Amino acid sequence: MSNVLSIGDKATLRSIPTPICFYACVAPNSRNPRGSLLKYLHTMVRVTDIEQSLRFYRDALGLKELSRKDYPQGRYTLVFLAAPGDEEAQVELTHNWDPEDYSGGRNFGHLAYAVDNIYDACRRLMDHGVTINRPPRDGRMAFVRSPDSVSIELLQKGPALAPAAPWNTMQNIGQW
Amino acid sequence: MSNVLSIGDKATLRSIPTPICFYACVAPNSRNPRGSLLKYLHTMVRVTDIEQSLRFYRDALGLKELSRKDYPQGRYTLVFLAAPGDEEAQVELTHNWDPEDYSGGRNFGHLAYAVDNIYDACRRLMDHGVTINRPPRDGRMAFVRSPDSVSIELLQKGPALAPAAPWNTMQNIGQW
Repeated sequence: MSNVLSIGDKATLRSIPTPICFYACVAPNSRNPRGSLLKYLHTMVRVTDIEQSLRFYRDALGLKELSRKDYPQGRYTLVFLAAPGDEEAQVELTHNWDPEDYSGGRNFGHLAYAVDNIYDACRRLMDHGVTINRPPRDGRMAFVRSPDSVSIELLQKGPALAPAAPWNTMQNIGQW
Repeated sequence: MSNVLSIGDKATLRSIPTPICFYACVAPNSRNPRGSLLKYLHTMVRVTDIEQSLRFYRDALGLKELSRKDYPQGRYTLVFLAAPGDEEAQVELTHNWDPEDYSGGRNFGHLAYAVDNIYDACRRLMDHGVTINRPPRDGRMAFVRSPDSVSIELLQKGPALAPAAPWNTMQNIGQW
């Protein structure tokens, strides 16, 4: 536990859950030519049944399926959807192959933002007393939670940054 | 109950909650010149404490506060935030003045989409067996829920449509 960086007084080290949201790569920002540090990517919701969910999100609501990928090792499937012509603001459906109970709020996943520099973004969060629940050990992905426990995902724009201290040795804290 | 339009077998008429999210107006679509029927607007999350939340979303994460408005009649405050330069993809903070317990998933609110014609959108949803929890009696706003109970808000682009049957007499069904 010596390399656990604990910030704030609410966080406790519990299990180290397997992240269930992975992006192969975040495309460079194309909607925001001013080079903002932050760009909205998607809202993730967990779904019990992909086909039932697609009948709602795609067939009934009118979103378009942009991509779908199975992750057999993590036993989950990700489906990305967006309104036709509005592809940059996405909804990510996460289907965990092993049943979960979504009655306690687990149906909602997180808000996701792309950042110019994930280490700078996490440093800024830490400077404001925010616990980095999933530190960016890989130079690519981090998770924090809002004061009301809404999960926020940060993803490095473009290729992952090179692993760097102190991030590469920080342990997960709590859940997200 | 004769004017309650009940669709699907999961919905039951319970209380008629006061909607806590109101928009004075949804600006005509500016990001999607192709005239899609649907455009992402915001993700709404409920917050216990506005200032504490702004320290997180604004100061620590880097979002910009776009607007804030108190609704004394409904006893809530709405704050809209977005990444600087990415103002069309918003996060809406809803602060209900009377304390609520957010441990059961109430911290997450809804995804919101603007639609070209809210009656057509609701008709399409109904045709797919979706319950219209909050019908667009006002020609402006509707709520439905996904198969996993994620709340989806639909808002008419531009001015509200004229009230029209059967929408103007439909009652609320369940919660959203």
